[in-house]
Amino acid sequence: MDPQRAEPLGSAELSMPRDRLALQKNSVCSRSYFLVVMVFVHVYIINVIALLLYVHYNNGPGDNSGPLSDVTSAAEPPEVGSHTHPPRAPEPSVVNRHLHRMEGIRVGHVQKVQLTPGRVHEMKTLSLKPLLFEIPGFLSEEECRLIIHLAKLKGLQESQVMIPEGGDELAEQLQISQEEIFHLLDHNRDGQLQLKEVLTHSRVRDGIWLTPENIREVYAGLKADPDGDGLLSLEEFKKLNSSAFQHFMQQRGVEKSQLVRNSKHTWLYQGEGAHHVLRQLRQRVIRLTRLPSWIVENSEPLQVVRYDRGGHYHAHHDSGPLYPETVCYHTKLTANASTPFETSCRYVTVLVYLNSVPGGGETTFPVADNRTYEEMSLIQNDVDLLDTRKHCDKGNLRVKPTQGTAIFWYNYLSDGKGWVGDLDEYSLHGGCVVTQGTKWIANNWINVDPDFHRQAQFQQLMADLDSREVHENRDDELYRDMQAERDHPQKNKVYSDQDLHQDL
Amino acid sequence: MDPQRAEPLGSAELSMPRDRLALQKNSVCSRSYFLVVMVFVHVYIINVIALLLYVHYNNGPGDNSGPLSDVTSAAEPPEVGSHTHPPRAPEPSVVNRHLHRMEGIRVGHVQKVQLTPGRVHEMKTLSLKPLLFEIPGFLSEEECRLIIHLAKLKGLQESQVMIPEGGDELAEQLQISQEEIFHLLDHNRDGQLQLKEVLTHSRVRDGIWLTPENIREVYAGLKADPDGDGLLSLEEFKKLNSSAFQHFMQQRGVEKSQLVRNSKHTWLYQGEGAHHVLRQLRQRVIRLTRLPSWIVENSEPLQVVRYDRGGHYHAHHDSGPLYPETVCYHTKLTANASTPFETSCRYVTVLVYLNSVPGGGETTFPVADNRTYEEMSLIQNDVDLLDTRKHCDKGNLRVKPTQGTAIFWYNYLSDGKGWVGDLDEYSLHGGCVVTQGTKWIANNWINVDPDFHRQAQFQQLMADLDSREVHENRDDELYRDMQAERDHPQKNKVYSDQDLHQDL
Repeated sequence: MDPQRAEPLGSAELSMPRDRLALQKNSVCSRSYFLVVMVFVHVYIINVIALLLYVHYNNGPGDNSGPLSDVTSAAEPPEVGSHTHPPRAPEPSVVNRHLHRMEGIRVGHVQKVQLTPGRVHEMKTLSLKPLLFEIPGFLSEEECRLIIHLAKLKGLQESQVMIPEGGDELAEQLQISQEEIFHLLDHNRDGQLQLKEVLTHSRVRDGIWLTPENIREVYAGLKADPDGDGLLSLEEFKKLNSSAFQHFMQQRGVEKSQLVRNSKHTWLYQGEGAHHVLRQLRQRVIRLTRLPSWIVENSEPLQVVRYDRGGHYHAHHDSGPLYPETVCYHTKLTANASTPFETSCRYVTVLVYLNSVPGGGETTFPVADNRTYEEMSLIQNDVDLLDTRKHCDKGNLRVKPTQGTAIFWYNYLSDGKGWVGDLDEYSLHGGCVVTQGTKWIANNWINVDPDFHRQAQFQQLMADLDSREVHENRDDELYRDMQAERDHPQKNKVYSDQDLHQDL
Repeated sequence: MDPQRAEPLGSAELSMPRDRLALQKNSVCSRSYFLVVMVFVHVYIINVIALLLYVHYNNGPGDNSGPLSDVTSAAEPPEVGSHTHPPRAPEPSVVNRHLHRMEGIRVGHVQKVQLTPGRVHEMKTLSLKPLLFEIPGFLSEEECRLIIHLAKLKGLQESQVMIPEGGDELAEQLQISQEEIFHLLDHNRDGQLQLKEVLTHSRVRDGIWLTPENIREVYAGLKADPDGDGLLSLEEFKKLNSSAFQHFMQQRGVEKSQLVRNSKHTWLYQGEGAHHVLRQLRQRVIRLTRLPSWIVENSEPLQVVRYDRGGHYHAHHDSGPLYPETVCYHTKLTANASTPFETSCRYVTVLVYLNSVPGGGETTFPVADNRTYEEMSLIQNDVDLLDTRKHCDKGNLRVKPTQGTAIFWYNYLSDGKGWVGDLDEYSLHGGCVVTQGTKWIANNWINVDPDFHRQAQFQQLMADLDSREVHENRDDELYRDMQAERDHPQKNKVYSDQDLHQDL
């Protein structure tokens, strides 16, 4: 092939004038061709960049299985061995605003997922409200045993301790009068507080799980309800502040079984340098949820919980509702905001059963797939659906603990634009009382700020810290703070868990 | 810039041996550059094609709003005036396998949609099971009036006529014995047929809506249940075939109010040449559902239904369940399959209220967002949730007819891979009895074959027919066939609706 023969092809593409080409043959052959090459090189490079950017912005980093693939395999995060992978720096400038959300399809639907090389797991939809899945064999027997062992080595602490003094700090901070509280509590607006109206208020704040009988007892002890009908008028309520209420309970003596939760737990760091089983667990969580690795890897460490016989955790939400002022524990430092509304912003909970419990210990979702959610109707005079010691069998859904099985669910709805929306109230769940043996579980929470920009800022900060190689202090500080707050929302930094989040 | 200086760049890309380059300078300058150009041209073209294909396969044709846009506007299908737009030929070679599915988020969630230029509609989630939305002001008052007018001009026919002879043709075709039918009906496997077990079988097939009282009456008339306990043993059932059953009902006399539905309807063609309001309605449906226009435009024509006072439609599914052998009416010709299992494959129903009904006429979704769906528990001895004449108030959800409001829902679930999955049993719905005035509604169904390849084949056929310009005969044939089948599944082509699907 000589240049003469090649010319028509080239010129057809670029429509160069033939006569110029013929006149300046020598220089044209080098200069024009060079120009052409350069143009194509640049166009090509721009094109590739555009394609890459497009792919990045349209698929989550962990979301690269097309709609045609039968097995939904998130190929990106590879299963890592210990100490082999340097932490990938997040790229906040091109962070994806779209969080993958599984399709539930229908209760009982089974989809295949690839979590470990050479093995396909089955993921079954347990409920749509909340969006809840079960994955048998998520961890092997040995992995479960190892995690229990690591937790024991580290040592467990009581999940809930009695708070010596309660008080109405939040109410004082918000400057709400007793009268306003009364009207907030009086859901049915009959000018009187029923027992259950008092319960929804009090049981969450004080750490003591109150039953209707307890309240009657307190009323009697404090002579708050002279006519003894179990109803409080505004006048009666004004005389009774919650310090008095709690003080009475304290004096009366509170047993562990009367607390919101009765368990011990510890935290296991899963980042660089952690045991390879813990690192692998995190990678498996990324593959399972198909959430961006930069979010999962900056989430809370693994919580391992031990429930002894008689242990329980009354029904609760893993994360709080979102008000305009709400900030997340994990992005609080970045947000630089001061507000009494703080929550853990746990978008997803992945709970793994580390052993098969001989008796009890089910995870209950009392309102799963219920048609409606009404806080008030959860507490009836005879059945309190929130009480996992008494009424676990009355709930809509219970999952039996089976070693290695994981369940995972979304604590927040979608906002319809690919990010985190409102709290999913149906995600209410609890741990039924263990009647025989011991129950061990591991919780992996994925923290996402519903404010996309705050999450992006946080990622930027984490990346900066990563590059400065100050891992140990950074994580410890953040999570010590966070943990203290979660356990004792009224008393920040009074209890600091010294051993929290240290690697083994 | 001379070729010498250019060389390092070019050679770096292609790693050509430097000495060869220096030796054959003249021919190299033309030949190698030509080669480089050609390589880049091809790589570039392949790249562009890859990008285009990627974009096409990942976004639906009517799905081009990113997750960042606040108003979900499907910009593609423009609002058309009458006679202005030639029908777009579908491109089955690059058809998108991903059907857009709205996010419900939660009951009561409101999202904004742009359906007509310069106006934003609000779309409210009414239920998640089925995925059901309400859009007030979908049609204007004038548009509603015009559609009623067009329907009247065309003339309406009875939606259901008494079938003179029933018979067990399906059972015969499938070669199922009476004994096998008995065991299929005996849900609770107690060896006896309760009234409700008989009801779930009989009421659907014969066009007559049977109540428990009717059945007792038939039993008495045919002396089928000598002991009169309302239960049929296998022996008793064998003596009673459904011809005898139906024959008795016929002789006894059946009133309109005893039929499954009591209404009149007509079909309005919406394709090329149709009234611009009907064309616009179809375009608005495309924008609303964000389903590919090539699917919506080859779906059934608009059905306009008139319910007079006393009119009703007992609870039903708009489309049938999917068995491996099931074929769709609309792709049957293409599928070339012979099976007794045929259904309309209506993926989506868009129902528009053309007037505000003075009394009754609500659309009921008796099991919307129910926790479970059990066919048997729908019919209790005292309350039959399927009966829209008696028990409309007992259902979970009722939508009041308001002029111009549209509701739309999915009759099928997703298959988890972007296409149509199983029937959504929760999509059960009916029209409550009209107690005052007249009720006018318009139904737009979007037909999708759950077998993607059959749907693609069908689109190819439609495109071929389109290009041969044989619109009128094609559509008429297909839908006459389809309609005859839907109304009289046992008696194909006995009644052919001569005026069906003709343009006004």
